[in-house]
Amino acid sequence: MTPPHPATAPAPRRADDSERYTVGVDFGTLSGRAVVVRVRDGEELASAVHDYTHGVIDRHLPGTGAPLPPDWALQHPRDWLDVLRRAVPEAVAASGVDPGSVIGIATDFTACTVLPALADGTPLVETSFAGRPHAWPKLWKHHAAQGQADRINELAHARGEKWITRYGGRISAEWQFAKALQVLEEDPGVYDACARWIEAADWIVWQLTGSESRNACTAGYKGIHQDGAYPDEEYLAALHPGFADFARTRLEFPLSALGSRAGSLTEEAARWTGLPQGIAVAAGNIDAHVTAAAARAVEDGRLLAIMGTSTCHIVNAPVLADIPGVCGVVNGGVVEGTYGYEAGQSAVGDVFAWVLSQGVPPEYLAEAAERGEDLHALLTRKAAGQPVGGHGLVALDWLNGNRSVLVDHHLSGVLVGLTLATRPEDVYRALLEATAFGTRIIVEALEHGGVPVHEFIVAGGLARNGLLMQIYSDVLRRPVSLAASQQGPALGSAIHAAVAAGAHPNVRAATAAMGRLRRDVYTPDPARADAYDELFAEYRSLHDLFGTGELLHRLRSIRNRAVAAD
Amino acid sequence: MTPPHPATAPAPRRADDSERYTVGVDFGTLSGRAVVVRVRDGEELASAVHDYTHGVIDRHLPGTGAPLPPDWALQHPRDWLDVLRRAVPEAVAASGVDPGSVIGIATDFTACTVLPALADGTPLVETSFAGRPHAWPKLWKHHAAQGQADRINELAHARGEKWITRYGGRISAEWQFAKALQVLEEDPGVYDACARWIEAADWIVWQLTGSESRNACTAGYKGIHQDGAYPDEEYLAALHPGFADFARTRLEFPLSALGSRAGSLTEEAARWTGLPQGIAVAAGNIDAHVTAAAARAVEDGRLLAIMGTSTCHIVNAPVLADIPGVCGVVNGGVVEGTYGYEAGQSAVGDVFAWVLSQGVPPEYLAEAAERGEDLHALLTRKAAGQPVGGHGLVALDWLNGNRSVLVDHHLSGVLVGLTLATRPEDVYRALLEATAFGTRIIVEALEHGGVPVHEFIVAGGLARNGLLMQIYSDVLRRPVSLAASQQGPALGSAIHAAVAAGAHPNVRAATAAMGRLRRDVYTPDPARADAYDELFAEYRSLHDLFGTGELLHRLRSIRNRAVAAD
Repeated sequence: MTPPHPATAPAPRRADDSERYTVGVDFGTLSGRAVVVRVRDGEELASAVHDYTHGVIDRHLPGTGAPLPPDWALQHPRDWLDVLRRAVPEAVAASGVDPGSVIGIATDFTACTVLPALADGTPLVETSFAGRPHAWPKLWKHHAAQGQADRINELAHARGEKWITRYGGRISAEWQFAKALQVLEEDPGVYDACARWIEAADWIVWQLTGSESRNACTAGYKGIHQDGAYPDEEYLAALHPGFADFARTRLEFPLSALGSRAGSLTEEAARWTGLPQGIAVAAGNIDAHVTAAAARAVEDGRLLAIMGTSTCHIVNAPVLADIPGVCGVVNGGVVEGTYGYEAGQSAVGDVFAWVLSQGVPPEYLAEAAERGEDLHALLTRKAAGQPVGGHGLVALDWLNGNRSVLVDHHLSGVLVGLTLATRPEDVYRALLEATAFGTRIIVEALEHGGVPVHEFIVAGGLARNGLLMQIYSDVLRRPVSLAASQQGPALGSAIHAAVAAGAHPNVRAATAAMGRLRRDVYTPDPARADAYDELFAEYRSLHDLFGTGELLHRLRSIRNRAVAAD
Repeated sequence: MTPPHPATAPAPRRADDSERYTVGVDFGTLSGRAVVVRVRDGEELASAVHDYTHGVIDRHLPGTGAPLPPDWALQHPRDWLDVLRRAVPEAVAASGVDPGSVIGIATDFTACTVLPALADGTPLVETSFAGRPHAWPKLWKHHAAQGQADRINELAHARGEKWITRYGGRISAEWQFAKALQVLEEDPGVYDACARWIEAADWIVWQLTGSESRNACTAGYKGIHQDGAYPDEEYLAALHPGFADFARTRLEFPLSALGSRAGSLTEEAARWTGLPQGIAVAAGNIDAHVTAAAARAVEDGRLLAIMGTSTCHIVNAPVLADIPGVCGVVNGGVVEGTYGYEAGQSAVGDVFAWVLSQGVPPEYLAEAAERGEDLHALLTRKAAGQPVGGHGLVALDWLNGNRSVLVDHHLSGVLVGLTLATRPEDVYRALLEATAFGTRIIVEALEHGGVPVHEFIVAGGLARNGLLMQIYSDVLRRPVSLAASQQGPALGSAIHAAVAAGAHPNVRAATAAMGRLRRDVYTPDPARADAYDELFAEYRSLHDLFGTGELLHRLRSIRNRAVAAD
């Protein structure tokens, strides 16, 4: 039989109509990605990416063109809505799934990316305040509130605030309170007009559901919400009299557990996304933390390292332990009913990229061109042939400071053991190893403090470097498992959407069904592990020497004075 | 009048027949250079270079083609004679000087470059032993006698030999005794046939004069001749029974003071050089030490730094002081009647070259090509604009170990203060500064030990780097004077030839008349000197920490084991 209307395009792949699907949307720094996932088993059917039109706004304010001060970084909320309008329908179309079989949507976001909004959720930047820089959403890497952060920390320690210990003794300049205090102090008019100070992670859910919600993850890790409360008014007033009611008036809201249903998709959001009105919308989440679901790392003791330019470590434990230098401990911060611990290394991939940024010898460039390798692959290959310790180097990987366990952003890197025979691949390998040693310091601090680590799981772009993964396995003397998905955050969101939609009873069950892990891809070699024990002892002695001594601080201070006086 | 035979070549430039001249010949690692100098004022009239035909023999033995073991480095004595046959007559011809007005010749040599010879001075390599590697002259950088040097040092300390303290507690593998012991142990037949074990510096004088002589400089700095004697037979027998009579039979000879007349030019040598038979031939000398005369650095307290791939420091003092880590203290080792102190930095220019060997970013290569700069000039220019301390780094310059004052070749380099913003010019400048700090450590050790340093004079290729010289001036808080001659060793030899010929009463007077110095070319800036005091305090603390701690030794040991097991 001949079909009556010959197809002019290939028919869409027919998904099984008996299956149900969710959409996960991951909002990154430069783009947003949507993925369509089968709720039964986590199969990823298709994805689509939308690049933000405005990207990172760090030079000039759109519209007025006014120059921005150093360390500023803003975003435009319309870019985020465009992801809903474009990437979501594109991913659904590419999947061949009947939109009617999509039962839920969930989102995750960079954090702390935060904006001032009116009481109805309208971003201040979409009002007459658009010409004022402080009305714009501040991206996570807006670093201009360091002065405010310093005072937040000093005052917290001076007053003995209990919550400060949950954050390794240090609130970041990137977080909600420092950024809000900067607005108050630098543009009180914007601060006054700001009815709600809200994470983009929660704001995007508001756009999907039509009603405000706040999630437990960003409130805990970025908002100093601990033991059911934000910092009290007395403390806030001591920071700035006008800041006393900040939390009560602009943050306070019942927190939604992760995977809970924040609301239902509005008619307008259904129109944007092409998804059915009324389907479940999950509570917001952070891109790193939501990846734990994708990588089956939500059970206690499974440490997930999300390794990219920097590394974020996430592990759950049933106890509230005092771990030096964690970035945050949040009850239900990763999954309900347990304590989520976050630690981090300030620069990892960035450190390896730094080696390349210094240049390589011309013959290396020629060799890479001939083999069609990028320079990371070239240096990795040259380094891979070395025996452990053969380069004679040990490094401290603090080229962007130390987030855990020293929590000191004024530290810097150290390279020990250079000779005239030292080659770029030696330095490269020494820095790969240094980041592994840094991870071992963190893992040992967790275990020593009472947070067991049963398994080590890696997600993120660096998981593709086999030499690096083997070094981590040897240094940690543990198998290294890999997240199977290349789009962990979006898959993690889709898993949370499935829970919000009731397809799985809870995040643990959904993760077991939908998360995907390649277990024990790398296993430690005993001889190499022994050799690394010896090098790690040297690393630790340098770590303690330079981490607790004042030399690096004096050098930083000399540098700052020299540059300021120049 | 028309001349009967029209000239087909320009007539030689007529030098003033009332003037007298000397020839200085500098024997380097790859070539020899002759310079013709006016004895009245040190004016250099002309020079010529002869490249050695065999260069450095470190792969295969000429003739047999037999492969040489690692760390071997030999030379061919015929190459040295070729310098006399070619460079000397060429320089004289180019100068336009009547050979009859040349009154003396002197030579200087790399050291310890040493050879076995028959009793009449015939090199063993010119006998039937030519096929045996140990019959060949060993170049200064023959490093295959480390095992022998280690035993020499251990035994000297075990027996409390007084002479060991004159050498910073450590005899080098490069020197006469280690190399001779290697011959005895590895080819006793060659050792037995060796009637004289002689520095090339003395052997070349033997060829010019027809009779053996030994100079005070090489005997003291390379031959362990102290207080009128070599190490005694009991000590030598304890090293190896066959070595007991080594010094008595193969070294012992009355020592000639520097600038003294070792003999007269033979008829044969006159034929080689085109110089008059019977003119004065001065005692041999070392290239570094003879430069002190060229740079007017023979008076007590004038420290000469000969800065190239490494740095050699020479200073005289009227007292025998106990300075930790000097390379050698020799009575009359630089000029008669005073103590010559030698110290050193194992790598200086080599360290800067190491930075370039790691590669630079592609845009730097493009910029250098566009400006027609070499990469040293490019990095120097980029580094020169920085305020002191602006790069935030401090380095230990021990990429080839530390010669003074730590005397430890198993140390290695350290780089502290790296950030993601660190650029190659930052590392480059930090290493320039580190070598200046290393020099300051040496200068302070000399002064602290009782050897005053009144003036700091630089010779050698690195004197051309203005940024480096200014850094030295600022770090040392002293003016930096520069040797005016570009061929310091050859000029220094010509000065010694003038003394040997009786044109000046002694080396001091000849130096005053013929040496040339650009005084105080660089002077310290007080503000920069203050800033460097602060950085030097950090350098010193790292110097003491890593120089006396065991971490660098452990790293070296880990490296050696790893490479050996690989």
